[in-house]
Amino acid sequence: MKTIDLNCDLGESFGPYKIGMDESGIKFVTSANIACGWHAGDPVVMDRTVKMAADLGVGVGAHPGYPDLMGFGRRNMDCDLEDIQKYVLYQIGALQAFCRVHGVQLRHVKPHGALYSTAVKNESVARAVAQAIVKFDPDLLFVALAGAKGESMRRMGKELGLKVVYEAFPDRAYTPDGNLQLRSQPGAVVTDPDEVAERALRMAKEGVVIAVDGTTIPIEAQTLCVHGDTPTSLKLVGKIRQILEANNIKLQPMGL
Amino acid sequence: MKTIDLNCDLGESFGPYKIGMDESGIKFVTSANIACGWHAGDPVVMDRTVKMAADLGVGVGAHPGYPDLMGFGRRNMDCDLEDIQKYVLYQIGALQAFCRVHGVQLRHVKPHGALYSTAVKNESVARAVAQAIVKFDPDLLFVALAGAKGESMRRMGKELGLKVVYEAFPDRAYTPDGNLQLRSQPGAVVTDPDEVAERALRMAKEGVVIAVDGTTIPIEAQTLCVHGDTPTSLKLVGKIRQILEANNIKLQPMGL
Amino acid sequence: MKTIDLNCDLGESFGPYKIGMDESGIKFVTSANIACGWHAGDPVVMDRTVKMAADLGVGVGAHPGYPDLMGFGRRNMDCDLEDIQKYVLYQIGALQAFCRVHGVQLRHVKPHGALYSTAVKNESVARAVAQAIVKFDPDLLFVALAGAKGESMRRMGKELGLKVVYEAFPDRAYTPDGNLQLRSQPGAVVTDPDEVAERALRMAKEGVVIAVDGTTIPIEAQTLCVHGDTPTSLKLVGKIRQILEANNIKLQPMGL
Amino acid sequence: MKTIDLNCDLGESFGPYKIGMDESGIKFVTSANIACGWHAGDPVVMDRTVKMAADLGVGVGAHPGYPDLMGFGRRNMDCDLEDIQKYVLYQIGALQAFCRVHGVQLRHVKPHGALYSTAVKNESVARAVAQAIVKFDPDLLFVALAGAKGESMRRMGKELGLKVVYEAFPDRAYTPDGNLQLRSQPGAVVTDPDEVAERALRMAKEGVVIAVDGTTIPIEAQTLCVHGDTPTSLKLVGKIRQILEANNIKLQPMGL
Repeated sequence: MKTIDLNCDLGESFGPYKIGMDESGIKFVTSANIACGWHAGDPVVMDRTVKMAADLGVGVGAHPGYPDLMGFGRRNMDCDLEDIQKYVLYQIGALQAFCRVHGVQLRHVKPHGALYSTAVKNESVARAVAQAIVKFDPDLLFVALAGAKGESMRRMGKELGLKVVYEAFPDRAYTPDGNLQLRSQPGAVVTDPDEVAERALRMAKEGVVIAVDGTTIPIEAQTLCVHGDTPTSLKLVGKIRQILEANNIKLQPMGL
Repeated sequence: MKTIDLNCDLGESFGPYKIGMDESGIKFVTSANIACGWHAGDPVVMDRTVKMAADLGVGVGAHPGYPDLMGFGRRNMDCDLEDIQKYVLYQIGALQAFCRVHGVQLRHVKPHGALYSTAVKNESVARAVAQAIVKFDPDLLFVALAGAKGESMRRMGKELGLKVVYEAFPDRAYTPDGNLQLRSQPGAVVTDPDEVAERALRMAKEGVVIAVDGTTIPIEAQTLCVHGDTPTSLKLVGKIRQILEANNIKLQPMGL
Repeated sequence: MKTIDLNCDLGESFGPYKIGMDESGIKFVTSANIACGWHAGDPVVMDRTVKMAADLGVGVGAHPGYPDLMGFGRRNMDCDLEDIQKYVLYQIGALQAFCRVHGVQLRHVKPHGALYSTAVKNESVARAVAQAIVKFDPDLLFVALAGAKGESMRRMGKELGLKVVYEAFPDRAYTPDGNLQLRSQPGAVVTDPDEVAERALRMAKEGVVIAVDGTTIPIEAQTLCVHGDTPTSLKLVGKIRQILEANNIKLQPMGL
Repeated sequence: MKTIDLNCDLGESFGPYKIGMDESGIKFVTSANIACGWHAGDPVVMDRTVKMAADLGVGVGAHPGYPDLMGFGRRNMDCDLEDIQKYVLYQIGALQAFCRVHGVQLRHVKPHGALYSTAVKNESVARAVAQAIVKFDPDLLFVALAGAKGESMRRMGKELGLKVVYEAFPDRAYTPDGNLQLRSQPGAVVTDPDEVAERALRMAKEGVVIAVDGTTIPIEAQTLCVHGDTPTSLKLVGKIRQILEANNIKLQPMGL
């Protein structure tokens, strides 16, 4: 039986500020990437989110980012590589405290926002993130971009001995060479819910995606990234889940 | 053979800002209270400080504080008790990451600044801190004020099953009823190095201190707090260490 | 013709985090208390909010708070009085930059959250805030609590030569001695929209409020604080506005 | 009579953290670039520094930077251009509050650290900074890099109608084409105090500098950047001042 993981960024509220629909969204996914208080999240939010994940059997992962709450970690910062490693260690450790409290295992690490996209482009940054993970716990899974462009990020993880989990995006268009279509291009985001669900199914079942030119290309992914921050996105995740289950794809946390 | 611990706040630098004399000071103490990035410290500093402590066999403890870098955690903040618990958990977890990396055991937790002084005055706050420690690891030592005023803080720790370590201040004057002389009073801080060293010795050897009225009062302490942030304080710590060793008091990390 | 001002806290979003309903709410009020980037708000939000106020002829005021984004400025911080003065100056100055850009006059200052409530209780804090205002511009209006408990806050402002604007809360219950009912007491917040609107009218027209014991007590107020952060509160503000206009109370920014 | 300005970054302490030697350094310069609380500085430090400058007749300028205290504003952040404009406005406004209090005129703006170096490389960023200045007060001076590489930064300022002040670095090596030698190259920083002083003199008196290949190249500068953060740098500034005065170069704040 085929399996797939659905992962979602969660726990991004901060103090009085609510963002996302954690309580609703978490029910539809099998892995949660939980913000660690730097680009988003705070200890109260982290505690609550880890508890929800624990209660629902959702896999818990750290989602470390740059120290930039105002920019939500979405702006690249030219940080020293050693510093990045320590920043990631700090954030994983902070989240791990709440995993202990709620008796749940920390399973994966996925860098957030600009830290993720910079790791894709710059293998030194990918390596710094991977080194932090290895040093903290070499059994943690490293979530990295599937497709051609993610190759060096994934290689950095593997070179350091990490289990790398490949991530694809059912709501994003792919170019014929297996990369995400740039967001600046028309059609970069697929908006029709049925089409997105269909794409998720093909990714999970056949390991392929239909590229922007209509060709079918291979895409190896063990986890699909979905969003749960709006009523619309929630509905979409529900649809993805439904089609996967209807096709006997088992949904389970990455690495199980 | 009598033993005593000398503890010191360390790792309080932040980014480009240096404070304290970590490299010099840490050599003279047996336990380090390491700031966790909220009132002071950052991941780079934490990593370096934990490594130094590990290399020297100095006991490592977390020194969590309020989220107030501008005020160095010295200003009370009227935080919700549940929030305090999570703030402390977050900070302990973050420090623990660096303990893992450097293969050293996290041994104790001592709240910093206003979080400490508020815990002394307000047993709900003391309880919130202690609960965080228990939830993280019930074997962690809880450093609490020795003397009459520290009674409820220590009781909160014990009620929750924690091992409580009593802390005294050789450079602070004590009132006849066993409390620290208020800093606003003249003579609240003892400045003569020989006198401070002598006081440290009597605390460690006889379990007493000479109060401001000249009476000798009991003070039970397993750790003495010293400062290493100026050349003068460094010299003072050296002197304390010397007199203790000359009197066959064994210096060792708290809890050993 | 009687006049009254309706003031509302605005510009409290931060980075990616939206809070309040600025675009909708600002249309119903005559004065905006704009967050200055410490407890809430950021430069982008401040710029946008000042522009909206300028476009609508809404009076612009600074809403300085404690440096506590995580607590939204609602937790008291035991700050040095001199520091508070400088914190308020900094925040007023920052907002003034956007007033310059949009060609609008900064008209008033109202401390936010815990800075406001502490100023009510502690006249040294009230004085520190008032001193900052006087130093920046003695023509700025100082918004202070109406009723018995606000007396010392208002006096501090007046002693320093400031024009003090008295603020009442139509949706809050008042005790017979003219104070706000504590929030911990039942009935502290009046929830029926018609009743709140009626109370606003009596405050504006007759200078009275019906206290919790049914007695009618005097309450002198030139501005009424309203909320615009939920669809419900928006509807309520609309109702207040309607009843005031229907009774020939002219709505205009404080100090005009 | 020739004139020149000596400018120095000041007011970079934060809360309990001291950096630089403000009290000593400010006596030797004619213009102070004062940090505005984002990459460094806080309201208390800003107030004190503006007061010192006012008392000594030193020209006051804003030194805005990225929101990155941990990185001291030295790491580039890929901020939206509109956001940069508002960030700079906010910081200028905040500093202006303290200028008002101390009755001193805000004279110039010099971006700090990575904001400066990015403005040199990227004319959109230079333009965003310049636009903030123009919007706040078109009479403010815009400090921009002298030499070939600073050309587009200076042009952006001029296109927007700003008076641009050219800045050179007597302790930095220059390439034959009029650019700063990269810091990664050997000899990028001139360390001999007499040589630095001599270079400052030639910059101020003859408008030239001897490049790394020994050729004499023109460098037009109205202000020289010096450092006052260590005892050594203080001595150096003293020497520069001495040689300039001995050669009848009048030291005065930029723009006078």
